[in-house]
Amino acid sequence: MKSSFKRYVIGKPLRSDALGEQKLSKTKALAILSSDALSSVAYGPEQILIVLMTVGTMAFWYSLPIAAGVVILLVALILSYRQVIFAYPHGGGAYVVSRENLGVNAGLVAGGSLLVDYILTVAVSVSAGTDAITSAFPSLHAYNVPIAIIFVIFLTILNLRGVTESASILAYPVYLFVGVMLLLIGIGLYNVATGQVPAELHPKIGTPVAGISLFILLKAFASGSSALTGVEAISNAIPNFRNPAPNNAAKTLLAMGAILAVLFIGIVSLAYFYGVAPTAEATVVSQLAEASVGRNFLYYIVQGTTAMILVLAANTGYSAFPLLAVNLSKDGFIPRIFQIRGDRLGYSNGILMLGIAAIFLIILFDGATEHLIPLYAVGVFIPFTLAQTGMMRKWWREKPKGWVARFTINTIGAAISFIVAMMFFVTKMPQVWPVFIFLPIIIFVFHRIKQHYQAVGEQLRLNHEELATIEGNVFIVPVAGITKVVENSLHYAKSLKVNKVIAFYVAFDQADAKAFEEKWNAWQPDVRLVTYYSPYRSITQPLIKFIDKVEHQCTKTGHKVTVVIPQFLPKKGWHHMLHNQSSLLIRTSLLFHRNVVIMTVPFHLSK
Amino acid sequence: MKSSFKRYVIGKPLRSDALGEQKLSKTKALAILSSDALSSVAYGPEQILIVLMTVGTMAFWYSLPIAAGVVILLVALILSYRQVIFAYPHGGGAYVVSRENLGVNAGLVAGGSLLVDYILTVAVSVSAGTDAITSAFPSLHAYNVPIAIIFVIFLTILNLRGVTESASILAYPVYLFVGVMLLLIGIGLYNVATGQVPAELHPKIGTPVAGISLFILLKAFASGSSALTGVEAISNAIPNFRNPAPNNAAKTLLAMGAILAVLFIGIVSLAYFYGVAPTAEATVVSQLAEASVGRNFLYYIVQGTTAMILVLAANTGYSAFPLLAVNLSKDGFIPRIFQIRGDRLGYSNGILMLGIAAIFLIILFDGATEHLIPLYAVGVFIPFTLAQTGMMRKWWREKPKGWVARFTINTIGAAISFIVAMMFFVTKMPQVWPVFIFLPIIIFVFHRIKQHYQAVGEQLRLNHEELATIEGNVFIVPVAGITKVVENSLHYAKSLKVNKVIAFYVAFDQADAKAFEEKWNAWQPDVRLVTYYSPYRSITQPLIKFIDKVEHQCTKTGHKVTVVIPQFLPKKGWHHMLHNQSSLLIRTSLLFHRNVVIMTVPFHLSK
Repeated sequence: MKSSFKRYVIGKPLRSDALGEQKLSKTKALAILSSDALSSVAYGPEQILIVLMTVGTMAFWYSLPIAAGVVILLVALILSYRQVIFAYPHGGGAYVVSRENLGVNAGLVAGGSLLVDYILTVAVSVSAGTDAITSAFPSLHAYNVPIAIIFVIFLTILNLRGVTESASILAYPVYLFVGVMLLLIGIGLYNVATGQVPAELHPKIGTPVAGISLFILLKAFASGSSALTGVEAISNAIPNFRNPAPNNAAKTLLAMGAILAVLFIGIVSLAYFYGVAPTAEATVVSQLAEASVGRNFLYYIVQGTTAMILVLAANTGYSAFPLLAVNLSKDGFIPRIFQIRGDRLGYSNGILMLGIAAIFLIILFDGATEHLIPLYAVGVFIPFTLAQTGMMRKWWREKPKGWVARFTINTIGAAISFIVAMMFFVTKMPQVWPVFIFLPIIIFVFHRIKQHYQAVGEQLRLNHEELATIEGNVFIVPVAGITKVVENSLHYAKSLKVNKVIAFYVAFDQADAKAFEEKWNAWQPDVRLVTYYSPYRSITQPLIKFIDKVEHQCTKTGHKVTVVIPQFLPKKGWHHMLHNQSSLLIRTSLLFHRNVVIMTVPFHLSK
Repeated sequence: MKSSFKRYVIGKPLRSDALGEQKLSKTKALAILSSDALSSVAYGPEQILIVLMTVGTMAFWYSLPIAAGVVILLVALILSYRQVIFAYPHGGGAYVVSRENLGVNAGLVAGGSLLVDYILTVAVSVSAGTDAITSAFPSLHAYNVPIAIIFVIFLTILNLRGVTESASILAYPVYLFVGVMLLLIGIGLYNVATGQVPAELHPKIGTPVAGISLFILLKAFASGSSALTGVEAISNAIPNFRNPAPNNAAKTLLAMGAILAVLFIGIVSLAYFYGVAPTAEATVVSQLAEASVGRNFLYYIVQGTTAMILVLAANTGYSAFPLLAVNLSKDGFIPRIFQIRGDRLGYSNGILMLGIAAIFLIILFDGATEHLIPLYAVGVFIPFTLAQTGMMRKWWREKPKGWVARFTINTIGAAISFIVAMMFFVTKMPQVWPVFIFLPIIIFVFHRIKQHYQAVGEQLRLNHEELATIEGNVFIVPVAGITKVVENSLHYAKSLKVNKVIAFYVAFDQADAKAFEEKWNAWQPDVRLVTYYSPYRSITQPLIKFIDKVEHQCTKTGHKVTVVIPQFLPKKGWHHMLHNQSSLLIRTSLLFHRNVVIMTVPFHLSK
């Protein structure tokens, strides 16, 4: 039943050689890998205006040069990650670039930040999308957390069903959002161009503003740059592209950059011309939609697709996290389980882990994950800076043809990313300090895991040492009564013709011990019975004591001790509750604490 | 660490032969077994007045004859249960009496009701006590549920520490409560006798009241009778008494009856003379204390001990539930686990189960368990009626010397109990209907469990059928690589000198299969390797397929198939997360679904 339910939800397993069919075309890849970056259009411009508003609405004209700055950073990042894609065509993005060029620890800082960041992406964007939906239907507001959790579960299942399937479904809303935004910007700019928007609405560009400072401008720039999170996702997810993967990934990256730049500049300009100021009641996009097209059908489409893109932004995390995890896992820094392909050929453990962690965060913050946004932005700009610095180092060392241009691009990217990251630390320390705690912890854990894998590898490697010859075998059969289960086990043990079979019985009182011995000797005179009295009613302790004693003797003669456990298996699952199953406890205890072979002889009940 | 924590909380294990020291003296037994019944004094009189108030305060004089009726019922029950104690000196109370005299199903109705009832006792009385405490400290009111849960955990631990220890601790508050109540009644009646209480406060006895009806009087009687819950506990707990257990239990029962009768009549009379009417703000006992001694130190002692006795009433459940469970378990109606004595010789599984179920109810009803009181009262009067009817039947059949008097006592008890139970059904159907659902379910489950145990017993019994001779053994060793773990397992398997050892490998692609076979043949030329290709990346499925194939061949030749699982065991617990441990999954899957012997050859890592 469990397996048919799984098959219904996830779909039927795919053969390993069907992997090629699970690769993405550029259009589909753009949809699922750019949703995070594109969704930033819905809140990035607003972030800039919120900072400028602390000086006054007169300062709003600064949003235009700031947006230009953000687009410059965007161009630098896009060009730079394009170089990453060709230089590291097997994916891995910032982690691989930093590891290769700046050393393992730099790689781990980048990888660890991104790993945490994708979890934050899912939690933050699903919560934001849920908020947008419940704002429209206030009666649902009390159910924010369960609704967000349902979205996470939906995305998790969709991704477990495989990357092509999720891309096919998610492509529609993403392109719809892009189309609607372009339409909105088009109508708005047409209105501006035809003079339907009064010029008094906005301060002239260049108006001097009292109280403006470089600090505020940089802060506004850093806030606006949070729109660039998600730009790195494509470089992590190259293996998901159809061949030639690097070329397709690079083209997709350029397309994403172009769309993002147009939408970002468009919304910022429109907001400037319409003189829109962020309020608690309505978002900038909502106000723009109302001002340019009125509260009609199109307005609701804008609102609906915006809410949807916020939820779907989470999907970028689902695409990039499992692939980053595979890279970290292959290097032995996180558990191997992340390398296993699931039924639908996706790295299902990474997908599940991401979903569970995001649900945990949503519950922990009671759905109010907006406090996590600065943390999340820092978590992106640290790997951005590291990746670009890594690329600089690479060009400097290898000096391939035309390296100066490449080096320049990466230097600009690194410098701006570094400034943005620093701005976050300077202006938002109260929210970003956890980074200084969890990053060292994560890196410590990464190293511990790696150490363990290395230690295990060494211990498992054949070293041509001869194993001690086993001179003979002694079997111990713990028995709880005179039953068919025991008969069955003894019958099997005898068939192996070992040197000695000893039955072992634990009695809870002396009379019982004597009675049992008599019955035993009548039944199995050829199998020696040893009885221990257990004053504290434990079965495992006397057994372990006896095993230790036998083992001590056997070591001298080169004999090996094996414990043969008679176990009956009830027919139905609920029957297990009705049996104490001491045999399972005994087995676990022996397996972990003693170096004896454990043999389970099953006796299946037929009813 | 786990075990030293357990030892700290529960105490060090006791030897089985120390059981005698865990028996209770009469004074201690009275304390822990009567807390439930005695605590009823705190709310029983109030219940009578609440019903009478629906007619008017003029009807309050009826509380005196009603209290007399309750005391008559109490006397009938005490005498009747005294007879139960001597007739069934090994305990089991209503369950055993009904089973022996009225048949198994009557016994199960009585036993099932009481089992549920003790859970309700714990939930209801702990919640009521918590309410009394948080009423005094309103700032704690928001924490009702966690406080109640802490009380339940406290009582659970106390009982796990053993019955003598809990009795020693609980005796003080119980006797303190009795003393304080007697003092309160004494002072109050002295005031009445010396004429300090104005006669106008109460209507004269016999005043005609408009609107009074037999129905209301019976309803008030039934409500007052809820004070008698807990009277049966001693008959269930006879095995906890020192020898001669039945005599000591009977004396304790009489003492409890006497104390309960005095306190009950005392509080009802005092309430009548002082003309106290129940209000939402203050309980009857609280008003009486204020009226007779004023709001001084003694008043707070009365309030404090009342709150305490309400919490401790739960302890009666802890004493009686595990012993009743042992009886049901010995008869095979509930899992055997309830018969195991814990470290401190108490039936710790029953104690734990009771605590968990009570916490579950407290959380489910958000601490407002007063809705459960009628359900709880019905759950007591059903077994009361059955037990007394069973005793009637016994005397009628056996006709021992002086049986007529005994028969009469039980007949009176049965009749009144039956009337009370019916009154609950008639007047409180909206609260007691669940009884008609859960009792049949419980009894159905009891029978299913019994059937299963019988079926297992039959299947395990030796039947002198010869087991088929095992002509030889074939070992299958699933291998995941060429490592020391595998080397170790093969070394062991070879030492058993069986007919055939086959290594089995699952390859995820064809190239891997070929490469592995070559390496294997160079390393272990004498062990045949079988490789299966798994297109769906499952390891278990190809292995099961192979085992089935080998088994099919072996059945023909009388050979037995054994699967030898090489398993490495990491040194530290957290390391387990880093390994997929497919061997554990394989083992479980084989054990439950295939009839093959499973051998685990451990390889303990040293670091």
